[in-house]
Amino acid sequence: MNNKEFVAELAKQTGRTPKETQTLITALVGELSAQLSDENMVSVQGFGNFEVRKKAEHIMVNPSTRQRMLVPPRIDIKFRPGTTLKESLK
Amino acid sequence: MNNKEFVAELAKQTGRTPKETQTLITALVGELSAQLSDENMVSVQGFGNFEVRKKAEHIMVNPSTRQRMLVPPRIDIKFRPGTTLKESLK
Repeated sequence: MNNKEFVAELAKQTGRTPKETQTLITALVGELSAQLSDENMVSVQGFGNFEVRKKAEHIMVNPSTRQRMLVPPRIDIKFRPGTTLKESLK
Repeated sequence: MNNKEFVAELAKQTGRTPKETQTLITALVGELSAQLSDENMVSVQGFGNFEVRKKAEHIMVNPSTRQRMLVPPRIDIKFRPGTTLKESLK
């Protein structure tokens, strides 16, 4: 289900226009992204937690060539579904 | 940041009441959960994709005791951040 279909379905259910619904989702996603950029985890009730995991820059050695490589820092987002969501999947 | 703080912040930004904002988030989360329960992936623009991964029931053998165990089926939700979100984390 792509973004457009999801927005249309949600608009229908909440009795709002797709445009208004998209605006709200954009605000939500923006706020979530801002929090995650600040490395704050965010809990969404009935859904789950979004966590940020940082992996520092480090040097890796290729064992066969002995060449050293600099692995750039990486930020991962981990979503952990909450119990309500897990139950609904059973 | 817990759910309440997140709702309060989002309400402030969208000029809605926290109660109204919570209602909208609940609808969004409900629709997302319903789609994921039907094993549909969902794309959220500017954020990323939610995918469902099913792992079937299977038998596992403990190599040291040779005991057989039945591993129950499992459903996992995988969130893949999109490029917009990844960029904002840099």
